[in-house]
Amino acid sequence: ATGVDKGVDFAQYFCTYAFLYHQKEMLSDRVRMDAYFNAIFQNKHHFQGKAVLDVGTGSGILAIWSAQAGARKVYAVEATKMSEHARALVKANNMEDVVEVIEGSMEEVTLPEKVDVIISEWMGYFLLRESMFDSVICARDRWLKPTGSMYPSHARMWMAPIRSGLADQKISDYEEAMDDWYHFTNETKTYYGVDMSVLAKPFSEEQKKYYLQTSLWNNLHPQQVIGTAAVVKEIDCLTATVSDILKLGSNFSSSITSENTRLCGFGGWFDVQFKGRSEDPAQQEIELTTAPSINNGTHWGQQVFLMHPPIRVSEGDDLNVSFLMNRSEENHRLMEVELGCEIKQNTGKLLPAFKKKFFIE
Amino acid sequence: ATGVDKGVDFAQYFCTYAFLYHQKEMLSDRVRMDAYFNAIFQNKHHFQGKAVLDVGTGSGILAIWSAQAGARKVYAVEATKMSEHARALVKANNMEDVVEVIEGSMEEVTLPEKVDVIISEWMGYFLLRESMFDSVICARDRWLKPTGSMYPSHARMWMAPIRSGLADQKISDYEEAMDDWYHFTNETKTYYGVDMSVLAKPFSEEQKKYYLQTSLWNNLHPQQVIGTAAVVKEIDCLTATVSDILKLGSNFSSSITSENTRLCGFGGWFDVQFKGRSEDPAQQEIELTTAPSINNGTHWGQQVFLMHPPIRVSEGDDLNVSFLMNRSEENHRLMEVELGCEIKQNTGKLLPAFKKKFFIE
Ligand SMILES: Nc1ncnc2c1ncn2[C@@H]1O[C@H](CSCC[C@H](N)C(=O)O)[C@@H](O)[C@H]1O
Ligand SMILES: Nc1ncnc2c1ncn2[C@@H]1O[C@H](CSCC[C@H](N)C(=O)O)[C@@H](O)[C@H]1O
Repeated sequence: ATGVDKGVDFAQYFCTYAFLYHQKEMLSDRVRMDAYFNAIFQNKHHFQGKAVLDVGTGSGILAIWSAQAGARKVYAVEATKMSEHARALVKANNMEDVVEVIEGSMEEVTLPEKVDVIISEWMGYFLLRESMFDSVICARDRWLKPTGSMYPSHARMWMAPIRSGLADQKISDYEEAMDDWYHFTNETKTYYGVDMSVLAKPFSEEQKKYYLQTSLWNNLHPQQVIGTAAVVKEIDCLTATVSDILKLGSNFSSSITSENTRLCGFGGWFDVQFKGRSEDPAQQEIELTTAPSINNGTHWGQQVFLMHPPIRVSEGDDLNVSFLMNRSEENHRLMEVELGCEIKQNTGKLLPAFKKKFFIE
Repeated sequence: ATGVDKGVDFAQYFCTYAFLYHQKEMLSDRVRMDAYFNAIFQNKHHFQGKAVLDVGTGSGILAIWSAQAGARKVYAVEATKMSEHARALVKANNMEDVVEVIEGSMEEVTLPEKVDVIISEWMGYFLLRESMFDSVICARDRWLKPTGSMYPSHARMWMAPIRSGLADQKISDYEEAMDDWYHFTNETKTYYGVDMSVLAKPFSEEQKKYYLQTSLWNNLHPQQVIGTAAVVKEIDCLTATVSDILKLGSNFSSSITSENTRLCGFGGWFDVQFKGRSEDPAQQEIELTTAPSINNGTHWGQQVFLMHPPIRVSEGDDLNVSFLMNRSEENHRLMEVELGCEIKQNTGKLLPAFKKKFFIE
């Protein structure tokens, strides 16, 4: 992205990926691992004898699998020092003749040839957090052959109305912080002769942003989803451009499917598909979903946007929701979301619409 | 410091100070507040009719107190947007004719005159973490009159042998992380056909660094201090240079004062004094100490360096300790410490010396 300070980006974003601990967390996500493993090994025809590019190879896992599936050559690009561990892992698994680990940022690396497949695990929370898909687009436009395939090939973002005890907890956290503030300003006035009350408003805004406007990572139970889920964005990885994902906007409707419950906000998640390319499709289509699940949760969990206060709803109530997502101005890898909601009760009564802003930190 | 990327420094260091929540934590530290409050109001002669510079004014508290004590003019310099809250606070306390809040980094700001007093709360964990004293030195060399005073005027770093249950906890955390690793590599081999064992060593090094070599923030109980404390560094704020604090080295001895206990490592803390200037001393000398204390703990706590495994010691055993502290190469606001220790038991027997490296993160 334009105007990004590389040093700052490294300090804020890449640094965590340089820890094996963090790579291990991703490598321990069985749902994630199974999806990529199956996508590769059940579609070996896409890899056999082919040139593959792994964007952000991390530990090197996807590059090694690609080699094991028969790739002629795999370019494994990684921006952090994790590249050194990837190189060791490639060697220990006897793939150093096939996998070439290249340390560098994808945007700046030069390859000796174009590739047949670009594979990458670029998905952040609620799909687009981290904005790493930008780097995949850049790689695709420069290095994918006109006949090449993307792994994954498609991605979708979902939203659904939810109930959650977190709504009450966050409100009470916020209220506690404000009680504490009033105690604090009293003490400061009494003991130290300085009146801090002028800062009550900016302090409450800071705390509101932190407790009430920051979306949360959460592992939702499927029963916390109280209405129909809707797709808010579809991405064809072969054709999507950065401007397609810079700003998202979507209006969707959802019907409440639970009886007599509370609408506490919305949950967001994503799925990606490995379908190959329409002229050269996958033999086995594989899907990786991060939807609420009892046994197949992922490290991505779901992104939760809480409305305050919760609203009583019941089966058959209809929601009309507007969703807007932009990148944060201070950090292009973080997002800002605006959610608007209108409720038409099953009695026909229309409740007053409301709108709220959130930060994906 | 040289070669510091300003954007990165802001992202890693200054950003937290832009939150009122963080300023409030410092403003709620009664020991800290009492010390500065008393230092100012019991030494009004240093402030009455004088020009004062507050380096890193944060909320503006020290600047407002200086004005309340009778300063003619206070320059309150703050690098972050907290300056706007400071300005509002100054106004709400009717000091806008005296206190001028200047947003900018101390190194780059120009004042219209030299000052009689530089006041600053620049102390980080174990005194020097954050390296903010560099900015105070820079301010002093440029803006303090030859007859001016520093608030505080002196600082000392202390160390003492300690016992701590954290030693056992950290060892078991580390061991658990490694057990988990072996489970993880088994699964990865079995289910995904990739042998990760080559990464066991770098992973264990990463985890050792995290669990065993990172010094810890801790509120020590005075009874956890098991031997005599020693001063490892004395700073005269009027004369100290950056090169005096860039690298510290000290050899000290300590006698175990507890009977039959375990030497688990060392605790480090600091104190600062407000003594004015020798030609123009304080009327009331004030001290702020962050030593282990039951009722007068501070938000600084103590910095704990754990040796593994603990060693049995008893009253009358003598320790010969070498202490070395450097700045981290990656981040000049963080530190690396080397501690060497030799134990001469009260029986005369000399135990094998050991040496350990730590990171103050
Ligand atoms: N522009 C870029 N250039 C190179 N590497 C990048 C990059 N953006 C992100 N990365 C790297 O991409 C990785 C994403 S995490 C996925 C790691 C690995 N492919 C796996 O599936 O387990 C991180 O290691 C990150 O450092
Ligand atoms: N070089 C520099 N120039 C300007 N401000 C600085 C600075 N280095 C640190 N600071 C600021 O110094 C403050 C230190 S915290 C102390 C705040 C306040 N004086 C109080 O006692 O409560 C922070 O707000 C930080 O942003």
